[in-house]
Amino acid sequence: MEKVNVADKLSLFSDHFNPRIVGELNGQHVKLVKFKGEFVWHKHDNEDELFYVLKGSFNMEFRDKTVTIDENEFLIVPKGVEHRPVAAEEVSIMLFEPATTLNTGDTEGELTRHELEKI
Amino acid sequence: MEKVNVADKLSLFSDHFNPRIVGELNGQHVKLVKFKGEFVWHKHDNEDELFYVLKGSFNMEFRDKTVTIDENEFLIVPKGVEHRPVAAEEVSIMLFEPATTLNTGDTEGELTRHELEKI
Repeated sequence: MEKVNVADKLSLFSDHFNPRIVGELNGQHVKLVKFKGEFVWHKHDNEDELFYVLKGSFNMEFRDKTVTIDENEFLIVPKGVEHRPVAAEEVSIMLFEPATTLNTGDTEGELTRHELEKI
Repeated sequence: MEKVNVADKLSLFSDHFNPRIVGELNGQHVKLVKFKGEFVWHKHDNEDELFYVLKGSFNMEFRDKTVTIDENEFLIVPKGVEHRPVAAEEVSIMLFEPATTLNTGDTEGELTRHELEKI
């Protein structure tokens, strides 16, 4: 039962679109990730996803609209909904989602990360 | 799919130890709560709980130690572990826990909240 300092954990990595696991509870993971640039369009058939912006801001694109999420705001993307995160500048994000969640959902490719580092 | 601004939601209430629901995903709730003073000793038999400090700081007391959690830090309390939050000054917290979680766990009393407001 050690507390986690989010800034300390964020200082441990600098790559983009590569989530790290920083907590586990009730079959869910708490992850930290940095985005910069355009991710891929994808959806998660079985998992809702929460994006909490710790630093910076980004756009979550949906097929019919775009939502800008600023610092200390969060957005929940329900399962089955296609989305694409796009960050003009680097943004640091905390994710809450089931441990089964694959970062690129149903769109496997270059950005897919099957094994996530725990930090 | 609306984003949630945490500061806006925190401005909607001022009472202590009375969590509000601000998000739902995968059978879990995202809640906001303000603590000031001493809560009751309790445990949750079936739920792990995450406490993320948005503003201020507080002490999480365990039977064998105390952990001070400051702004932008979080602590996960595993199921079955007795704990008591104590806040010398007001602290604003985001909780992430199963929808089944009762705030006072196995210690029902004056501070128990069965029906939580969604804001």
